[in-house]
Amino acid sequence: MGGQHFMRQALALARANVADGGRPFGAVLVRDGEVIARAANGIHRDHDPTAHAELLAIRAASAALGSPRLDGVVVYASGHPCPMCLAAMHLCGIAEAWFAYSNEEGEPYGLSTAPLYAEMARPPVRHQRLRLRSLRPEEEQGLYAEWSARR
Amino acid sequence: MGGQHFMRQALALARANVADGGRPFGAVLVRDGEVIARAANGIHRDHDPTAHAELLAIRAASAALGSPRLDGVVVYASGHPCPMCLAAMHLCGIAEAWFAYSNEEGEPYGLSTAPLYAEMARPPVRHQRLRLRSLRPEEEQGLYAEWSARR
Repeated sequence: MGGQHFMRQALALARANVADGGRPFGAVLVRDGEVIARAANGIHRDHDPTAHAELLAIRAASAALGSPRLDGVVVYASGHPCPMCLAAMHLCGIAEAWFAYSNEEGEPYGLSTAPLYAEMARPPVRHQRLRLRSLRPEEEQGLYAEWSARR
Repeated sequence: MGGQHFMRQALALARANVADGGRPFGAVLVRDGEVIARAANGIHRDHDPTAHAELLAIRAASAALGSPRLDGVVVYASGHPCPMCLAAMHLCGIAEAWFAYSNEEGEPYGLSTAPLYAEMARPPVRHQRLRLRSLRPEEEQGLYAEWSARR
């Protein structure tokens, strides 16, 4: 099966989700030519702001495979992945992703994450809409060394 | 209660997680001076690569509040948030976050996400370790307009 086939599945998931009152996003994860997980955006169902189609599909795939590593998995997403989902792909070793609808097409509908990409391109302590700072209790030290010593 | 108090809770969660065989990360979410969610990294328990402390705490907070919006929530994270978690904070309106251990301190232990921040600073189609491309079935059009028309 080719990429068009899997992308059509992702788009069908997005349309079914719209019919269900959800957002127009679906994702299909494929390994060795077989679908290992699929998901649609679930924010309307459980209020979870992280319930993007790609993130839910990554969680389903790792549960199905019994591993947090998804090397060799290809993502077919109906829309351009947001920075959260793209970073999640990096974290689990996904190296290939495809999208049908661009951020430019999403922009008139408030569905573009281009502004968030612009924010993420800044150093984390220089974000404009999120103040990230260091706060270290005086006595605190050695946490990572403690973890490393137990591995 | 001050920020040091909440940060110590996040650090205690991280240490308890290490004792449980997990990674050294904990997070506490606070609104109006009250803890609304807390979590530790859960990757060792369920293989979910997205089960970072901050992401799990965001999911718990949205479930507790019944809303995907977490405006006014402050994050206390034992370690510097990764790009996935920082983007998730943006997505739900979190505007303030604190961390105790830096990426620099995590680097000798393989716990720094600075390389992923460097990757995320590039335009999404120019990432070095993830190939993101457009794939649009010929007949496909109108998905976002269909969603918009149903709202």
